[in-house]
Amino acid sequence: MRIVLDAMGTDHAPSAEVEGAIGALQDLDADVDIVLVGDQSVIARELERHPPVQTGRLHVRHAPDRVSAADSPASVLRKKPDSSIVVGLRMVQAGDAAAFVSAGSTGAVMATSLFTLKTLPGVDRPAIGTILPTASGPCLLLDAGANVDCKPHQLHQFAHLGHVYAQDLMGLSSPRIGLLNIGEEPEKGDELSVETHGLLAADPALSFVGNIEGRDIILGACDVVVCDGFVGNVLLKFYESVAEFIIGLLKKELSHTAERIDLDEVFRVLDYTETGGAPLLGLDGISIICHGESPPRAIRNAIRAAARAARANMVRHIASELGTPGTAPEV
Amino acid sequence: MRIVLDAMGTDHAPSAEVEGAIGALQDLDADVDIVLVGDQSVIARELERHPPVQTGRLHVRHAPDRVSAADSPASVLRKKPDSSIVVGLRMVQAGDAAAFVSAGSTGAVMATSLFTLKTLPGVDRPAIGTILPTASGPCLLLDAGANVDCKPHQLHQFAHLGHVYAQDLMGLSSPRIGLLNIGEEPEKGDELSVETHGLLAADPALSFVGNIEGRDIILGACDVVVCDGFVGNVLLKFYESVAEFIIGLLKKELSHTAERIDLDEVFRVLDYTETGGAPLLGLDGISIICHGESPPRAIRNAIRAAARAARANMVRHIASELGTPGTAPEV
Repeated sequence: MRIVLDAMGTDHAPSAEVEGAIGALQDLDADVDIVLVGDQSVIARELERHPPVQTGRLHVRHAPDRVSAADSPASVLRKKPDSSIVVGLRMVQAGDAAAFVSAGSTGAVMATSLFTLKTLPGVDRPAIGTILPTASGPCLLLDAGANVDCKPHQLHQFAHLGHVYAQDLMGLSSPRIGLLNIGEEPEKGDELSVETHGLLAADPALSFVGNIEGRDIILGACDVVVCDGFVGNVLLKFYESVAEFIIGLLKKELSHTAERIDLDEVFRVLDYTETGGAPLLGLDGISIICHGESPPRAIRNAIRAAARAARANMVRHIASELGTPGTAPEV
Repeated sequence: MRIVLDAMGTDHAPSAEVEGAIGALQDLDADVDIVLVGDQSVIARELERHPPVQTGRLHVRHAPDRVSAADSPASVLRKKPDSSIVVGLRMVQAGDAAAFVSAGSTGAVMATSLFTLKTLPGVDRPAIGTILPTASGPCLLLDAGANVDCKPHQLHQFAHLGHVYAQDLMGLSSPRIGLLNIGEEPEKGDELSVETHGLLAADPALSFVGNIEGRDIILGACDVVVCDGFVGNVLLKFYESVAEFIIGLLKKELSHTAERIDLDEVFRVLDYTETGGAPLLGLDGISIICHGESPPRAIRNAIRAAARAARANMVRHIASELGTPGTAPEV
């Protein structure tokens, strides 16, 4: 199995990518190899800084075009055909690789993934899944920002996407699905929530636990939280910043104390680098988006998540969950 | 000036209310008095547990009806006319008191406030304002849950309500107004956000700083954050729970260390009891909602905020901000 890694995505590319890829090879089965896509000479120079890697498991594919902030996400496929994003996703589209991982522009990766891999039949729009750390382990939130002004049937699709992801990647046979809302009762919330509640409650294929309020997420009330991408994106960014803010407050205070406390260890549970990137779900292929500021550890975990999703045949499971056959090859 | 306090609202009523009221009298000018509304004998028994209060500044008004969870919020005015919520708000409505403070059922206080005090001309629906602690001080978020499926002109009204509150209660001459959204650019977000952005940007009476993302709130990017009550409520509950979660993680860790660190002091900035309750804005009168689990300190601060809002003639300012005269008496 082959995983494609965009080597030009992070703010410090390709250093974090190369180190992350080399680390990931240690975690993965021997039949998995990684293709670094990007500027060949830049990647080669970075590789020279590391000890040689086991023959045949780390490859480089040249992709000279650079995607910049000036490129509109929707234009990348057409205007930057030799960029790492387009070349990498084309490999997955062609069946030459099982998954794509990138820390490049979220918008560009999302749009190009959609244009190349396409959505599975039965999916209106792909959703971004994000893992939130909670008191009782990871919780998948979707959509985390790919779609706004969602319709009830789209949130219903997200529930199925999350259901399969939680089965295949989180090891849960019957993941608890919650609908993000502002009250517990079925009639609470905005029009979207009330209608979606009806759809989810009537679906025997889902373990729907009902409405989940803002405070319930962190208490671990469910394994998958379904919401419109507007509120999901606000929540995700808010969570990251609140965690940073509180840890900052604390570090300032603790700097006055004599005892050495390893806060990084205390807050490892809040560390997004543990979670392995944000999958784009609902596509006919695997595409995982990482933070632009991802350190090597985050890249390494995202590659592992990509390999697990491929190994578990997640795309086929999603296709069959939605009642239609996908075209992704069995791995 | 007279402030009415619902003495039956908190989970441990009337103990927190009585202690909070007695504390507030120490903070307030000598011409401010407080009326405790609720079951007279219960309040009297609680008062006996405290030293006598300065004559004439603490009163009791009997209100025997009890609002229970079984009462639908909209039915309280009709079915429980002698409840502390209805009796207290009737006093404000009649001009016998300047403000009402309650830790009772949010829905019941909201509905009864609306039915008795009514909205000011130019206001479609009142909004709940909530103070979020941030890295650079308090930030007012509204709407925090009174309204879902808002229209752009309603968010525009919320911006004006927040503008006046921040002027009168937060001491800011030109409060920075932000629109909660999922990107900085004006064209980002859902339909509601895009249209609202246009209205706010075109309004010379507001210091509109543009779109605010989830991560910007806690960094102190603005003084007032405007949003639909759905996302506002999710965010508020999430914030409270994340803060609790992180502090919990930390307490567990720090319990193993030798040094005593006063975490409550570190996190005082995150403590909602500091913020003085959540004002219902846009009504022709002052009504402030507190947490059901409010300790005396939170009640005390809410009473102070109520007195400040009354003293600042906030309702008249809102009415004049919206171009129409309010009926609240000048204090």
